[in-house]
Amino acid sequence: MFTILPIKGLFDQIEGFYCDGISAGLKANNALDLGFIYSDTLCEVEAIFTNNKFQAAPLKHYQMYDKNFKTNFVLINSKNANALTGQKGIENIDTIFSSLDFELVNPIMSSTGVIGNHLPVEKIIAGAKKFDLNSKNAHNLSKAIMTTDAYSKTTMYEVKLEDGSSFKIGAVAKGAGMINPNLATMLCFICTDANIPKEDMKEALLENSETTFNAISVDGDTSTNDTVLLLSNKKSNVYDKDAFKEVLRLVMHDMAMLMVSDGEGAKKAVAFEVLNAASYEDAQIAAKALSNSLLVKTALFGEDPNFGRIASTIGASRVVSDENKLVISYNDVIVYNKGEFVFNEQIEQEAAKVLKNDKFKIICDLGVGKYSFTAYGCDLGYEYVKINADYRT
Amino acid sequence: MFTILPIKGLFDQIEGFYCDGISAGLKANNALDLGFIYSDTLCEVEAIFTNNKFQAAPLKHYQMYDKNFKTNFVLINSKNANALTGQKGIENIDTIFSSLDFELVNPIMSSTGVIGNHLPVEKIIAGAKKFDLNSKNAHNLSKAIMTTDAYSKTTMYEVKLEDGSSFKIGAVAKGAGMINPNLATMLCFICTDANIPKEDMKEALLENSETTFNAISVDGDTSTNDTVLLLSNKKSNVYDKDAFKEVLRLVMHDMAMLMVSDGEGAKKAVAFEVLNAASYEDAQIAAKALSNSLLVKTALFGEDPNFGRIASTIGASRVVSDENKLVISYNDVIVYNKGEFVFNEQIEQEAAKVLKNDKFKIICDLGVGKYSFTAYGCDLGYEYVKINADYRT
Repeated sequence: MFTILPIKGLFDQIEGFYCDGISAGLKANNALDLGFIYSDTLCEVEAIFTNNKFQAAPLKHYQMYDKNFKTNFVLINSKNANALTGQKGIENIDTIFSSLDFELVNPIMSSTGVIGNHLPVEKIIAGAKKFDLNSKNAHNLSKAIMTTDAYSKTTMYEVKLEDGSSFKIGAVAKGAGMINPNLATMLCFICTDANIPKEDMKEALLENSETTFNAISVDGDTSTNDTVLLLSNKKSNVYDKDAFKEVLRLVMHDMAMLMVSDGEGAKKAVAFEVLNAASYEDAQIAAKALSNSLLVKTALFGEDPNFGRIASTIGASRVVSDENKLVISYNDVIVYNKGEFVFNEQIEQEAAKVLKNDKFKIICDLGVGKYSFTAYGCDLGYEYVKINADYRT
Repeated sequence: MFTILPIKGLFDQIEGFYCDGISAGLKANNALDLGFIYSDTLCEVEAIFTNNKFQAAPLKHYQMYDKNFKTNFVLINSKNANALTGQKGIENIDTIFSSLDFELVNPIMSSTGVIGNHLPVEKIIAGAKKFDLNSKNAHNLSKAIMTTDAYSKTTMYEVKLEDGSSFKIGAVAKGAGMINPNLATMLCFICTDANIPKEDMKEALLENSETTFNAISVDGDTSTNDTVLLLSNKKSNVYDKDAFKEVLRLVMHDMAMLMVSDGEGAKKAVAFEVLNAASYEDAQIAAKALSNSLLVKTALFGEDPNFGRIASTIGASRVVSDENKLVISYNDVIVYNKGEFVFNEQIEQEAAKVLKNDKFKIICDLGVGKYSFTAYGCDLGYEYVKINADYRT
């Protein structure tokens, strides 16, 4: 048995972790754009990266370390992704780290921003030299990693085991959806003092990513820089495998939900629940098809209970389905029932009312099996177009 | 040898075909919403339908005929898709046809519009009773099948063989992209007097659909009603297999290009050429990924030569690729060259100039093989959101 408590504050409360964000002149108007996480002991580290074929230089740099490397430092910049930058992109990272006077052990870099430009190495070095490694300012760090994010994203938990011992875990992230290979890639940094064995770190990350970061969509694109990094300094000396998996799922779910709610102009966060599919894969395909469909997303923006688009998207996804078994509801309002016409004026009004909420569910019961999956998405409106049309400026 | 001549006018010029469009009160303001194609002899017929799992009632109705059925009549309505309407949706079609006094042989129905409502049977019968089967008014027909189309879509060719004999082929279509399961499905009706054997019809349709209708994208959605119908009355008594395939490709290409240029507010028609891919499938996957990417489409809308989005989309498509072999150009302006930095201010300005055109190419030379594919797409801006947010109203 264990108890998971959401706690106020940020991961800089965890003993031994230090962080901050400063302005290095990458963004205009002295906005925060360069940050770090420093640990006063060596951390075990595990990561999940984008499956984009063109992984950015920092991802390649990370993967050049030995499999079981430990680290005490993560440097993070926004505004430039250091992607599609070839060998020089990797060399620039080494140049930056070798110019700093801190005692760095296997330092990690993480970047987000425009693709195809080399890092402004001098600015980054000059900025990093100003870091105070005694800072505990996760708030500034969470600001420094933002790109098109409307708000910064943090979460923090304490886990108490039955014997009274406890460990902490917290995260900062950026990302306005699974989106924007260009300027807004998804990054998430998770710090913990749990005494987790190295082999459990990857397992817990992978198991939980499927239903959290891989279940959200703003526009269905995958960036060159997506990174989820888990750092553990083990200082609590406490660990419970089930408790850790559960709290990591909460941390990742919190971050994923904050991202999807911040989907570049999105006003609505929607859970697309596909129930009773013929296979888990089918449930996943159908749920993700719904959360990715432009037609569904624009109908949500228009607050139009246009269930034909839901049904058609299920059909277009080619999963096992039958229009005489399908049931579609907005929260508990059934709008399509196994081919029977139920969408009268009253039902339409009730459905329209659900759509006016900031958060609601669209439930598709396929009625052909026993597998379910929930994907998370948002509406898509004028603001998305505006943000993405004028991106680099 | 043969010559293909684009000719003015519409397919109603082909001997034996009659058509018209009228207002039956399905659309508001007496807009044209019901049309027909009538042939004074029985036609050989072949069709390609959507691969959406929830095929609309008219598609099911068609497929209930014998494999080699002939027909003399196609009835087409807009505003209601008769999809997700169960058995009653099919019965309604029979009710409509049995209420008409014309001598109909295996009549075909085709519908486009909102999903999930039953056809207004009485209105359609009353409207169809007003048809004059001697009309030759393909212009009105092309208007009657429009939904969100900004303009009607027609094309017409004459094919002259070496011996001086000739046949004609023409088409009307609707569709503002491969889009909108809800109100704007893609329909295309092609009429010819070529003396084509039944077995060649399907082959020619399938061969050409891959590089025409299946190569365009406005939003990557597949509707419940998509239909391409080829009718031949064989009256010319003339046929040449190569000539027919070639002219059918032109007809389908013309229609596909008109659709993609009419992509619900689109201002730009863009050819995404993927060259030197490792396989034909890879070329197709990468080209379609580009034409479907929201990030690419919004950057086109913003006229931003943001090649990072192109590269990232190629990478996200997971085809065989290497950033040190990839070359990206806008028309003939190279913006990314095998990892070398070429995107200086002058190149950026030249690229931005290309993007100001209504039509241009984005070329991605993967440099890893010898296969190519071209997909066609458009930009996506505020107008798309507006049209799709307020759809059913």
